[in-house]
Amino acid sequence: MDQPLPLAEIAHSHLTFVEGFALDCGVTLPALTVAFRTYGTLNSERSNAVLVCHALTGDQYVAEISPVTGKGGWWDLVIGPGRPIDTDRFFVICANVLGGCMGSTGARSPKDDGSGDRWGTDFPPVTIRDMVRAQKRLIDHLGITRLFAVLGGSMGGMQVLQWAASYPECVFAALPIATAAYHSAQNIAFHEVGRQAIFADPHWNNGQYWRDGLIPARGLAVARMCAHITYLSEEALTRKFGRRLQNAPKDAGEVMSLFGEMFEVESYLRHQGSTFVQRFDANAYLTITRACDFFDLAADYDGDLANAFRGTRTRFLLASFSSDWLYPTAASRSIARALNRAGANVSFVEFPTDKGHDAFLLDEPDFHRTLAGFVRGCAMHAGLPG
Amino acid sequence: MDQPLPLAEIAHSHLTFVEGFALDCGVTLPALTVAFRTYGTLNSERSNAVLVCHALTGDQYVAEISPVTGKGGWWDLVIGPGRPIDTDRFFVICANVLGGCMGSTGARSPKDDGSGDRWGTDFPPVTIRDMVRAQKRLIDHLGITRLFAVLGGSMGGMQVLQWAASYPECVFAALPIATAAYHSAQNIAFHEVGRQAIFADPHWNNGQYWRDGLIPARGLAVARMCAHITYLSEEALTRKFGRRLQNAPKDAGEVMSLFGEMFEVESYLRHQGSTFVQRFDANAYLTITRACDFFDLAADYDGDLANAFRGTRTRFLLASFSSDWLYPTAASRSIARALNRAGANVSFVEFPTDKGHDAFLLDEPDFHRTLAGFVRGCAMHAGLPG
Repeated sequence: MDQPLPLAEIAHSHLTFVEGFALDCGVTLPALTVAFRTYGTLNSERSNAVLVCHALTGDQYVAEISPVTGKGGWWDLVIGPGRPIDTDRFFVICANVLGGCMGSTGARSPKDDGSGDRWGTDFPPVTIRDMVRAQKRLIDHLGITRLFAVLGGSMGGMQVLQWAASYPECVFAALPIATAAYHSAQNIAFHEVGRQAIFADPHWNNGQYWRDGLIPARGLAVARMCAHITYLSEEALTRKFGRRLQNAPKDAGEVMSLFGEMFEVESYLRHQGSTFVQRFDANAYLTITRACDFFDLAADYDGDLANAFRGTRTRFLLASFSSDWLYPTAASRSIARALNRAGANVSFVEFPTDKGHDAFLLDEPDFHRTLAGFVRGCAMHAGLPG
Repeated sequence: MDQPLPLAEIAHSHLTFVEGFALDCGVTLPALTVAFRTYGTLNSERSNAVLVCHALTGDQYVAEISPVTGKGGWWDLVIGPGRPIDTDRFFVICANVLGGCMGSTGARSPKDDGSGDRWGTDFPPVTIRDMVRAQKRLIDHLGITRLFAVLGGSMGGMQVLQWAASYPECVFAALPIATAAYHSAQNIAFHEVGRQAIFADPHWNNGQYWRDGLIPARGLAVARMCAHITYLSEEALTRKFGRRLQNAPKDAGEVMSLFGEMFEVESYLRHQGSTFVQRFDANAYLTITRACDFFDLAADYDGDLANAFRGTRTRFLLASFSSDWLYPTAASRSIARALNRAGANVSFVEFPTDKGHDAFLLDEPDFHRTLAGFVRGCAMHAGLPG
């Protein structure tokens, strides 16, 4: 792999709040920058706002071309004109998470101590709740007192749950998708493999890698490859690649070559790794995986997840995908049960698919129809103009 | 992690065959060394021999203290006096696989070209069939024309299947355990992550790492950590570690520290990685994972696994473990069906356990009772003295 360049410095639309921002870890950030994008128009009642929360390696470019990758929005299938979240009707907001690398305050940000240095590994650890509080500051600034809906998949779904727990009066409808209320030991284990791969990279340089213009690309790529396997199901890998070889060489000796790209699935994974390092920062990966690992919503409520939602008037739609083994249906089911115990208004649908965790990002018409129907019903209940 | 030393040079018991050894890839090794251990006594009819095939990172020290780790045999629960494979009755043989790092010919061996150099990454790729042919040479040398039984788990089970297919008349009973007749796309993908982690290590040095007395320890450790997750079930990880923290620091700031050992499961994984590099060689890891990936027994028999076993008189016991997601029960079931189509004598048992793939190495009394009963019955059919 050619040594890739550090992530380009791009001017992302953002707001900076100069009041201090206190984190769960006890550190107070002197200022908070939230990079975000919006789609559609906020109505005069400010009642049609939908907040989208992105996943671990997502960003705020949910429904438009990303200035970093040049590719279309990561949830174009769900957000846009005529889509399940119709931007002709709703005002959609998506912010880069706190600790991210797309313009919000994170390890790549200057330290604000006048040194001009970046935070790097000195950036304090953040929690999912910190991420949500940063979004809340943005929402407050926009003058929105109640979000019509908050939705997101994977780590985005964790933020949705946290929103519903922390600010129940501000969330009319909550849609946690392909997610869990806590990170399991296996989830943590896979993240730890990725972190160790980053630490092992020759260019890691104790997290100060930008000083010599290098990035821990190979380690970050390995982290991504490992994580990517968990995003797909075994069935999807088999369907897409099976045991097919590519670049089949001329003779048996070459076929057995140890280092060439042999199986299609290997080539695919290497591609996933090498493109990822061009759009993501290693320190951000560490910060955000750590935030996921620490997420355990029930732990903040005496160990009973139902306590997080008692008395809530928020309407919930939980969605899981049958072949998702990262955040399996059982994880959504236990959230549904907690919501039931809390007396909440909850719908829960498991969608049959062989696409694994990534299904929430892919073309799943049943899922999209269900989203659209739920949102339509909620809009009626909320008294939004049709 | 302190930089560990390269694997110690230990004199393993071995035989060297100076006739050339032709590999599936087309290369002929000038000589073949097979390091092996035996337990029990070969009877005068040479009819009580049992061959144990080891897994990816196993070795020949199946039922005794390993001179490398100082720990007991890796299958002490199955092999030994009074054990399911009773060494008071059977003559047990276990050989380090071709391509391994415990004394059999592999990447650490001298090249035999007079240069005194090691093979390193020049070592030719080997297949599971090559491994089995190396074992066959050993068995021939020992004057054994028919093995009473061949057994092994995981990659060991692949060798068992290959033995039964290649040398049906030499195998009275075959016990492929927790294995598969081919490597799936997901299996290959996980191996590829491990290989990329090794290549990314600063001390990899294109596989010539022994030249400067260093080893790609961190990369190899990451490979092991990733693989180790696949050896355990999610349930086992949850039962053993859950979300428990260790070295709980004094204040919240430290609790959230990004780099300390935080969750018990992280500490456990790191330990797995750091001890592994003291007993295994990175080039051997590459060679052997590649051999697994290329394993697809049916492909050698016109795509129908049943063809591999037509007319066989070998008695089969297939064993799988309910929470094994690396080589799941479905993989064993498809082998059982192929054996049925081939008209073979086959028993197939799935053992309920939450221990995942590693269950085959652990204390599973039902599994051990089944092994013992099957072996006893086969011994009767084989006319072995009771």
